[in-house]
Amino acid sequence: MREFGFDLIATDGAARMGRIETAHGVIDTPAFMPVGTAGTVKATTPEMVAETGAQVILGNTYHLMLRPGVERVERFGGLHTFMNWPGPILTDSGGFQVMSLTELRKLTENGVEFRSHIDGAKHHLTPERSVEIQHRLGADITMVLDECTQFPATEEQAFESMQLSMRWAERSKAAFVQRLGYGLFGIVQGSIYPDLRAESVVLLREIGFDGYAIGGLSVGEGQVAMFNIVEETAARLPEDRPRYLMGVGKPDDLVGAVERGIDMFDCVLPTRSGRTDQAFTRMGQLNMRNARHRDDPRPLDPACRCYACAGYSRGYIHHLVVAKEILGMMLLSWHNLTYYQDLMRDMREAIYTGGLNAFKAQFATTQEAGDLAPV
Amino acid sequence: MREFGFDLIATDGAARMGRIETAHGVIDTPAFMPVGTAGTVKATTPEMVAETGAQVILGNTYHLMLRPGVERVERFGGLHTFMNWPGPILTDSGGFQVMSLTELRKLTENGVEFRSHIDGAKHHLTPERSVEIQHRLGADITMVLDECTQFPATEEQAFESMQLSMRWAERSKAAFVQRLGYGLFGIVQGSIYPDLRAESVVLLREIGFDGYAIGGLSVGEGQVAMFNIVEETAARLPEDRPRYLMGVGKPDDLVGAVERGIDMFDCVLPTRSGRTDQAFTRMGQLNMRNARHRDDPRPLDPACRCYACAGYSRGYIHHLVVAKEILGMMLLSWHNLTYYQDLMRDMREAIYTGGLNAFKAQFATTQEAGDLAPV
Repeated sequence: MREFGFDLIATDGAARMGRIETAHGVIDTPAFMPVGTAGTVKATTPEMVAETGAQVILGNTYHLMLRPGVERVERFGGLHTFMNWPGPILTDSGGFQVMSLTELRKLTENGVEFRSHIDGAKHHLTPERSVEIQHRLGADITMVLDECTQFPATEEQAFESMQLSMRWAERSKAAFVQRLGYGLFGIVQGSIYPDLRAESVVLLREIGFDGYAIGGLSVGEGQVAMFNIVEETAARLPEDRPRYLMGVGKPDDLVGAVERGIDMFDCVLPTRSGRTDQAFTRMGQLNMRNARHRDDPRPLDPACRCYACAGYSRGYIHHLVVAKEILGMMLLSWHNLTYYQDLMRDMREAIYTGGLNAFKAQFATTQEAGDLAPV
Repeated sequence: MREFGFDLIATDGAARMGRIETAHGVIDTPAFMPVGTAGTVKATTPEMVAETGAQVILGNTYHLMLRPGVERVERFGGLHTFMNWPGPILTDSGGFQVMSLTELRKLTENGVEFRSHIDGAKHHLTPERSVEIQHRLGADITMVLDECTQFPATEEQAFESMQLSMRWAERSKAAFVQRLGYGLFGIVQGSIYPDLRAESVVLLREIGFDGYAIGGLSVGEGQVAMFNIVEETAARLPEDRPRYLMGVGKPDDLVGAVERGIDMFDCVLPTRSGRTDQAFTRMGQLNMRNARHRDDPRPLDPACRCYACAGYSRGYIHHLVVAKEILGMMLLSWHNLTYYQDLMRDMREAIYTGGLNAFKAQFATTQEAGDLAPV
């Protein structure tokens, strides 16, 4: 079994290129993690996901604990075996979904009590319970339970919330069973208040984690505010641990956050967009329902190496999405995940060669046309 | 370019094993054709379909002429290129769907006038127009336009309808452009009346076709009546041409029809069942929504070689279908298509070795348990 660890291989300004070692394999960073909410990255097979270049996926503790249930996943040999994904898996703590998907929830010092959005059954989630569930799912990377601070929040609300998350982080650390190849990440909170973020970092570093996430962003604060918090927070985090910006984001969010020192990302955007007729390309975003694509023989993105771009025209994909064919969702999800992975790979290469600024300038020019470009 | 043709390689009783040569490749018979209604075999990629062993797929003229339109498919280089399926394609005439999917249709000697079920636009379908559309789609095998006789029908209704279909068959033949590697099939009608079926065969043989289909069955007459018509009709068809039973059917329908001399089949059942939680297996049919599967670590069918059975448990697939995940539909469609192709391959081998009776006895024992079997 490998030791869980992070090697920083190269830097370019604040940007970092590195490698995480986990029980189920390596993760080259900066890395984008496709989201496999309910034990599947929607509309794809694990082989398709691996073919895009993804090395790690994210699983949602909230969804899996409710259905099929952690005991069941455990009996099947853990999440890797259950869903047939042999590579690393990061699981979230479940806290974010409890707050966003459930009603009648009750937050106390001990944890959160809620009713399932599926069948109304009552559940408790505490820091200890969340860590135990993630252990039993077999997660390579476990996230501490935190309270994702509501937005907007006053500084006092944000302080109280952050303090609760820090107490939960300490309890999560105490509950985490150290095993070779498995890591536990803390989560920085503090809303848009730099002092609170800084205090959160100090408290988490005192506890000590295998990696540090920045939570509570991309919730409505806007990209400028997000980048400011990311920049100031990343600068305070230890150099020798991976940094993960949770739930982010659009392609330009990723570029800006990598530039500011982030190593890991997750987001439903490439797959959700793939199921709602959207394609990310080097010529901007395309809405494949748009009739302008119906006679277009070009692939989604001529520079893309993915299965969808190798064999299918925009006209055919337009036809599939208009006819509501499942293959349309499959091809667009596959393509979008490939686009995201190629973006990360290009950024890793740019950082390694000291060319991130040039990459960024080039990237900006690729994002301007999309559906507005002439056919 | 290959000559379109059929080689009869072996027989076992009335059952036949052979090979069809087409412009886009060979088809080993008895063959099952997955249905690609709107230019995609639903919830699969063409590579998945090929991996199941399928050598030919069916395209629906009615759907394709309405959306994306034959001119558009033609501009993309034909249906093979448009949908990225390099193998043989058989297209139906569109007649069946006009009768089953449209309202306000008007049937005359010349053809049928109807309104699109998609946008209400008015269309005409005549024997000449149907053959032309299929030519422009690039079909390896073109079907004549016929009237699928309603069921039940009096003998007089069935006679009138069959006579109309025979006049349309003659016009279809006259309209068909002979090209190396491309074939035209006639369609026997006559409802459940053996004399009408016999007369239809005589009339079609006088016109002369590259293959002969039996239409208007599996419409409510029951398996016994269907097998009787199939047996009597197949016996009158020329030995040196392939015989195609349209729209059939369940696994035991295929076995009984092969036994009676049928070479080709098409049916939406394996893919439609795959999208509605059903699995065909050597232990009978399984409803994967059934809670009895939720802790079952076995694959759908331990004797199956498909991707779904190689990597996924019944418990996981149960989870996917309950969670309404697209991957559930993908895996079940892939598996069901493989089950159908394995059934055809096993029958081809049995016929070649003179063992079809033994195969049939063995097959019957595999279809009895399904969801009723002990876990």
